[in-house]
Amino acid sequence: MTQSIIEALRAELPNLRLLTDEIDRESYRSDEASYLKSQLPMAVALPETTAEVSAIVRLAAKHRVPIVPRGAGTGLSGASGGLEGGITVAFTRMNRILEIDKANLLAVAQPGVINADLKAAVATEGLFYPPDPASFEICSIGGNIGTNAGGLCCVKYGVTRDSVLGLEVVLADGTVIRTGGRNVKDVAGYALTHLFIGSQGTLGLVTEATLRLRPAPPPKATLLAFFAQTDAAGDAVERITAAGLVPCTLELMDRVTIRAVNDAFHLDLPDAAALLLIESDLPGAAAEAELDAASSAAEGAGAVEQVRATNAMEADGLRQARRLALRAIEKLGATRMEDVGAPRSKLVELLDAIQRVVSERGLNCGTFGHAGDGNLHPTFWWERGDADAEARVTAACEELYRAAIDLGGTVTGEHGIGVARLPFLELQRGPDAVRVMHQIKAALDPLNILNPGRAI
Amino acid sequence: MTQSIIEALRAELPNLRLLTDEIDRESYRSDEASYLKSQLPMAVALPETTAEVSAIVRLAAKHRVPIVPRGAGTGLSGASGGLEGGITVAFTRMNRILEIDKANLLAVAQPGVINADLKAAVATEGLFYPPDPASFEICSIGGNIGTNAGGLCCVKYGVTRDSVLGLEVVLADGTVIRTGGRNVKDVAGYALTHLFIGSQGTLGLVTEATLRLRPAPPPKATLLAFFAQTDAAGDAVERITAAGLVPCTLELMDRVTIRAVNDAFHLDLPDAAALLLIESDLPGAAAEAELDAASSAAEGAGAVEQVRATNAMEADGLRQARRLALRAIEKLGATRMEDVGAPRSKLVELLDAIQRVVSERGLNCGTFGHAGDGNLHPTFWWERGDADAEARVTAACEELYRAAIDLGGTVTGEHGIGVARLPFLELQRGPDAVRVMHQIKAALDPLNILNPGRAI
Repeated sequence: MTQSIIEALRAELPNLRLLTDEIDRESYRSDEASYLKSQLPMAVALPETTAEVSAIVRLAAKHRVPIVPRGAGTGLSGASGGLEGGITVAFTRMNRILEIDKANLLAVAQPGVINADLKAAVATEGLFYPPDPASFEICSIGGNIGTNAGGLCCVKYGVTRDSVLGLEVVLADGTVIRTGGRNVKDVAGYALTHLFIGSQGTLGLVTEATLRLRPAPPPKATLLAFFAQTDAAGDAVERITAAGLVPCTLELMDRVTIRAVNDAFHLDLPDAAALLLIESDLPGAAAEAELDAASSAAEGAGAVEQVRATNAMEADGLRQARRLALRAIEKLGATRMEDVGAPRSKLVELLDAIQRVVSERGLNCGTFGHAGDGNLHPTFWWERGDADAEARVTAACEELYRAAIDLGGTVTGEHGIGVARLPFLELQRGPDAVRVMHQIKAALDPLNILNPGRAI
Repeated sequence: MTQSIIEALRAELPNLRLLTDEIDRESYRSDEASYLKSQLPMAVALPETTAEVSAIVRLAAKHRVPIVPRGAGTGLSGASGGLEGGITVAFTRMNRILEIDKANLLAVAQPGVINADLKAAVATEGLFYPPDPASFEICSIGGNIGTNAGGLCCVKYGVTRDSVLGLEVVLADGTVIRTGGRNVKDVAGYALTHLFIGSQGTLGLVTEATLRLRPAPPPKATLLAFFAQTDAAGDAVERITAAGLVPCTLELMDRVTIRAVNDAFHLDLPDAAALLLIESDLPGAAAEAELDAASSAAEGAGAVEQVRATNAMEADGLRQARRLALRAIEKLGATRMEDVGAPRSKLVELLDAIQRVVSERGLNCGTFGHAGDGNLHPTFWWERGDADAEARVTAACEELYRAAIDLGGTVTGEHGIGVARLPFLELQRGPDAVRVMHQIKAALDPLNILNPGRAI
């Protein structure tokens, strides 16, 4: 079987770049969730056209070979890691921005386009593509759609879903369909676009996306607020919401993360239990006015220090701490980054739950994330090769998932269920909702060849 | 069969309000798309709890009786009109706002809550529920979710979909599931919430919705701009977009509509080929600055007159024309309101297409709608009982659907496919995409009892 599909692919698509040497396939073994058990794909296809993707999937269906779609491999849920006996379809070579349509505020892009490249291309037209996962400089649009990726902008501009107007999708039998389109309002038929977004390649392979753009906002006004207690930072977030503010950034870092960033990058941030990064991109004087109000809210919550940028370079400096958080922790050992969320008002309870599992199990963990969305990234680290510590982290994560669910939250705010959190999907969604998901999966992919064992 | 389900309902749900007298059922025959052929439902159930809805659907499945879910009956696609031999489930009595959660900027509402009642209730907390279909004073949240309703706010605040965080849904076998929740970021499993939104009750019955709120924006700054040519109004819309403005209202009325409003309500608007209503709700001085820029754009496009409100009462006066558009045309005879859309940049071409089908067939039609979204409501009228005129309107609408599709547009921007536009779904979406919709429908409703023959 193995050989027959490889031969069939070579026969039907002689120009397809197809990696079969072990050394080449090795790079496609896992995504960034390196703590997960990995599998080596049988082959890696690097198509350049939708027609090639369609032919690959058709042959895979014929040969009953699983397909793993893969963007830039920066995912944090294991969804684009290899499957033994499977073909990984990597979209690296489908990386063209096909169109920037300024009049309709949209862009058309292939799935392999790097998020930052799209941002840069539309910026030259005075436009803005909001979704900004922390990995935006290296992650792909297709991967962002697969996970419904978030980022720092979500508190004001929403998640990837909110910036997708339409898709071209290769279905499990190789059929190519288009969903949505260029209309900002369109209610003809079921919302297939939305069903495919976040499905991690289990319902179809996205080969093109029509993306919604916005006019570029003005430069951001930027503020850092430091707190002596984590609760006070949580209180500040609540006060900012209660004051009717909608900052374009509302991010948190805890003490461990602040120290890690200071140690790794010599930033000289004051030692504090938590900091909030707060930004406004309202036009004109409204930005400073919004920050004034946010600053008052932070003060009311007991901020011990506040630093406000007076120019773009200072603002960039203030932002740097948050941007370097993950990299600083990664310097400390093997890491596992989690993605729990809770309703905004439960932010402090979620932070407490993280603190509890960390201290009870004697673990190392820095927490940072999207305070304004209630979505946090507790990031554990341990000495590489310390199997005992890794096992304790695994147990801590499972406890954390339960804690998030108990708070009415989620086991994953923006990274995806993938493989990593699959055992907890039913606990969060309930068996009947998961049954519906499986009914949809079976209807669209009856042979179960599209990324089997992931997402649902 | 007919009697047996009625008896079963009465036996199992003795407290259920169940209308079986013809005179009572008559009111549930059609929705606001009164030009469609209507059918009288066998019975009308008015449940008060999710458990009752579940039991009704379970019995309907057992007896193979179709179910039509119905909100306030203000739909414009025929989706909530009766089915002979079917049971209409009207959500009129499930009309409670269950919770307003200010800290999490959300509300929990039953489907029968009137949109305006929700708006008013959250406004007392300083909050804002954006979706504002023209019928907002009489339409229900459940109906809004069924059609993914739009309105005037969409150009800035999006459609109903953008304000829904989670749903409680009764499935085709009576099972109750919950989708989404209270988290603004949550990617656990497939986006079932989004699949149900806009599915016009064909996949499940929504019995509760968790809705996203925003801080109440400041009062709007309001401008009317008048144009001697329709093209110039279209040009103004393009210039406003190109200038990077995001007004919270960007509405158009054509000459026929302006005259109808003047005649019916003595508004003394200047006679013009088109007007644009432009509003800004940015904070502080930014609102007037945005209107200044919009006004310059309108002038650059050749506006012949502009009127700007200097206070809230004047603003309300300027808004009135647009608000009265449909009512003014309805005074002229029998009406049929359409809902075509096109990519924003094709607005003028869409207006031209409307003009062409109207004049070629010698029809009466006033066009108004959401210029900023490319979504227009050409509204035909004819003398009641004039079957010939009605037939010409039908033919005109079909031609218009084709023209919208040719422009890359949609046959329905916010009203839904329902029954009215069913023959055109495949033309717009393509047979393969529609096949996927039917696969999903079959997977979730294998007996085809949920609003059969509607939406897809």
